Amino acid sequence: MIEDKRVFVYDTTLRDGAQAEGISFTLHDKIKICTLLDEFGVDYIEAGNPTSNPKDIEFFNTFKSSKLKNAKLVAFGSTRKPMGKVKNDSGVNALINSGAPVAAIFGKSWDMHVTEILRTTLDENLNMIMDTIAYLKAANLEVVFDAEHFFDGYKRNPEYAVKTIVTAEKAGADWIVLCDTNGGTLPLEIADIVEKAKEAVNTPLGIHCHNDSGVAEANTVLGVQKGAKMFQGTFNGYGERCGNANITTLVPTLELKTDFKLKCSKNLTDISSVSRYVSEIANMAHNQKAPYVGNSAFAHKGGMHIDAVLKDPESFEHISPELVGNNRRILMSEVSGKSTVVKKIQRIAPWVTKDSKEAQGIIDKIKQLEYEGYQFEGADSSFELMVRRMLNMNQKFFDVKDFRVHCENKWDEENSAYAIIKVEVDGREELAAAEGDGPVNAMDGALRKALKVFYPQLNDIRLTDYKVRVLDTAEATASKVRVHIETASKNKVWGTVGVSTNIIEASWEALVDSIEYFLYEEKSKKGES
Amino acid sequence: MIEDKRVFVYDTTLRDGAQAEGISFTLHDKIKICTLLDEFGVDYIEAGNPTSNPKDIEFFNTFKSSKLKNAKLVAFGSTRKPMGKVKNDSGVNALINSGAPVAAIFGKSWDMHVTEILRTTLDENLNMIMDTIAYLKAANLEVVFDAEHFFDGYKRNPEYAVKTIVTAEKAGADWIVLCDTNGGTLPLEIADIVEKAKEAVNTPLGIHCHNDSGVAEANTVLGVQKGAKMFQGTFNGYGERCGNANITTLVPTLELKTDFKLKCSKNLTDISSVSRYVSEIANMAHNQKAPYVGNSAFAHKGGMHIDAVLKDPESFEHISPELVGNNRRILMSEVSGKSTVVKKIQRIAPWVTKDSKEAQGIIDKIKQLEYEGYQFEGADSSFELMVRRMLNMNQKFFDVKDFRVHCENKWDEENSAYAIIKVEVDGREELAAAEGDGPVNAMDGALRKALKVFYPQLNDIRLTDYKVRVLDTAEATASKVRVHIETASKNKVWGTVGVSTNIIEASWEALVDSIEYFLYEEKSKKGES
Repeated sequence: MIEDKRVFVYDTTLRDGAQAEGISFTLHDKIKICTLLDEFGVDYIEAGNPTSNPKDIEFFNTFKSSKLKNAKLVAFGSTRKPMGKVKNDSGVNALINSGAPVAAIFGKSWDMHVTEILRTTLDENLNMIMDTIAYLKAANLEVVFDAEHFFDGYKRNPEYAVKTIVTAEKAGADWIVLCDTNGGTLPLEIADIVEKAKEAVNTPLGIHCHNDSGVAEANTVLGVQKGAKMFQGTFNGYGERCGNANITTLVPTLELKTDFKLKCSKNLTDISSVSRYVSEIANMAHNQKAPYVGNSAFAHKGGMHIDAVLKDPESFEHISPELVGNNRRILMSEVSGKSTVVKKIQRIAPWVTKDSKEAQGIIDKIKQLEYEGYQFEGADSSFELMVRRMLNMNQKFFDVKDFRVHCENKWDEENSAYAIIKVEVDGREELAAAEGDGPVNAMDGALRKALKVFYPQLNDIRLTDYKVRVLDTAEATASKVRVHIETASKNKVWGTVGVSTNIIEASWEALVDSIEYFLYEEKSKKGES
Repeated sequence: MIEDKRVFVYDTTLRDGAQAEGISFTLHDKIKICTLLDEFGVDYIEAGNPTSNPKDIEFFNTFKSSKLKNAKLVAFGSTRKPMGKVKNDSGVNALINSGAPVAAIFGKSWDMHVTEILRTTLDENLNMIMDTIAYLKAANLEVVFDAEHFFDGYKRNPEYAVKTIVTAEKAGADWIVLCDTNGGTLPLEIADIVEKAKEAVNTPLGIHCHNDSGVAEANTVLGVQKGAKMFQGTFNGYGERCGNANITTLVPTLELKTDFKLKCSKNLTDISSVSRYVSEIANMAHNQKAPYVGNSAFAHKGGMHIDAVLKDPESFEHISPELVGNNRRILMSEVSGKSTVVKKIQRIAPWVTKDSKEAQGIIDKIKQLEYEGYQFEGADSSFELMVRRMLNMNQKFFDVKDFRVHCENKWDEENSAYAIIKVEVDGREELAAAEGDGPVNAMDGALRKALKVFYPQLNDIRLTDYKVRVLDTAEATASKVRVHIETASKNKVWGTVGVSTNIIEASWEALVDSIEYFLYEEKSKKGES
């Protein structure tokens, strides 16, 4: 019996999430994500399909369930083939052989899918559900039955849809998961149909939603409020088409806005960093606008909003960003007034007053830089460095004595890009050269190579994003570019900016800022400054 | 009296949308978006705040309401200042002077905001609402009252929240919009509180939701289902923090899944292209996963899903992509089987059968290219060109006879990047040179310059995205890069891919494919091939 308000989190980032366009996890990626999810505290990790996908078979051969501290490992497959015998079904047997203690199988709940896609009879589909679950239960597995297209099926043929889950219950399924596989169902329908399913079976229900109508998270919350004891979702909402219900939204919502209990809630402050780390492994840009965990989730730009947030954060924040390990950010923009800028300056230099010469000097500088094309949104670190330089609070960690970048590409010849950089630190010079996949890459390589001699901690940071934007200036002939670089250490992501008519110069500026900012932060942490 | 099922669409892309991090519309951008929204058929366009933002003042001075065919132009502001006189309030008068026929003003419905942020009395806030609306009505404006933080206010002090909207009704407001300004309210609460508001006033209600809990669209749909006659939202969900309710989701949902009537529904098939065009003007990457309009919204990757969709699209699509002007896409990936690839080939060459030598040849080629690091997801055009080349169906539009790219950057010296390219078309050679903001930009410029002599239609296309990804290969020393280019003409967006250890070569490959694909498509349309 499940405790009244307990809700289980079932993660399928590695299976349904891997169906997302642009995602292709390596074995190594899968192991990293699995460990991360387990530490975060999800209850189930659906790690792949050992019945058809060679990479997933390799995963189950390599990664043993016993390595997990919190979560149960789940192997995913389907009911046996129509008219076959379950004991001879290679797919079903692969679930047992995977070594995972839990098997999730999907079966058809929509009559159309049975007759048109499986091309078998409605009765045979019920037999398939019955045989497969009973066989897996006899092999001592915990069995999750995913009632595929349950909502679409229920809307067309409620009697048959209910029969499929009643059959799963009779066969001994431990969980019955109602799936809105196509993501087409609206909230009121979800609520209504979950209630109907709850009347039909006693087995604990789960809910699995897709985002094709933009309501995956709302539907999941409603499913839980109407009685589902488990929800399935993925980190960052990865999944086929428009994605799956997003765990990084659902965990904070259920924990902070309802009285349901999740095991992973104790790690809620880690959710922003886990979300970013998963996106890094998946090699997908992190969704800036993501609720709770996005870089913009607590970013304030409107002048009036900023003033109000500074008076009382609750005025324009539905929750405190610290609860989910995220940060409040006050953005610079033409909409933000002087008092906003001063508040930002005061975080760096608390003694600067609104009417001081220093404040005016910095504001004039910002105006000039914005006119030149700089934008400090998403480049807080460059802003901070600029303020410190204006106030003579900055520290020189290195001087660049020389830099040369050269690239040459000719038709049918070998191409080359290399950089030579000379730095000076505490009177010692270091010259380094590096080749690269193009000039910026070469430059980045050479600069780090030279600086690592003095600052080995630079091994811990890496470039996570590099964006170039051509600025829409009046003089079209001399169009400037703005380069935005995102750098990450283990615990932090920071942005820097550079502007020039030459992409290499702009990149260089953002690159140098990113390194200087990191070295300053490291030093401050050690209390040396 | 509003017809029973009629719902009004109130767009605030230019006002609340402009509060999004990374968005900064120029006057020219605003005029383009305004025209686009009007043609699409939204009912109201909230174009900016003429009371405080200089750019918005310039907009209202330049753009006249009479230019709109479908929509009413709205100027946005707030109730008068505490303890002031409305007739002397410069902000309120600016709304009248803007020339817009509709004024939207926000007023406080949450008692905490009145006492802590405005720092006035609860009674004075009611006076501010009363005076301001009455004054604007006396000036013959249609008045929209945005009850800011109505839901948060109602949860803390329902009596006062209701008083604010009853006051707005007494003052003569034409619309009362219930705002979930902080985006923190969950669907069941929204439904309940909208019902309560409906009992308190007779004025038509609107709903305005933010996405901080990931449920902005669900809340908006529920608001409409519970009686709101208007919803506010933005194109692509742009807006402060996590964004506003997304019009590109809401319009298809209400039109295709409920019996509500929207004026813009007649242009529903334009919504994907309008959405992309707005993102282009905003200079934001289009959200690939966006419901209905995203590039991945009808993209199928899982092998079983693909087989089913080919049997019956309804099996894994909640609506037909044609209804919203989007396309079904079958993605190539390790999960997709041979039959999927063959179906894709058959769209280009219908005579190729599954067991033919041609099909096997192409499949072998795909495997080899994927091994080399190519990924045809998002690069359908490169896939199509590759198939045509394999089947000798391709057409040479040009030969490249030579290309040279050179860039040189030195410490404290002028930098340079230029490209020289020679092409041959029908025996005629053309040499062109171009400088650029870096080598790829120079190369793009020179290639187009040379080819435009023969193909002036190339003036109509432009690069909309350029992405570089370093591939995770075993030999770290020779890491390959994959370049993905997105190109757009007026009606279409297409993707191409290039892979090489050298970024310039990879870019070159994707660039040439993008142009060749366009020229082929143009020629096919004219029926010449």
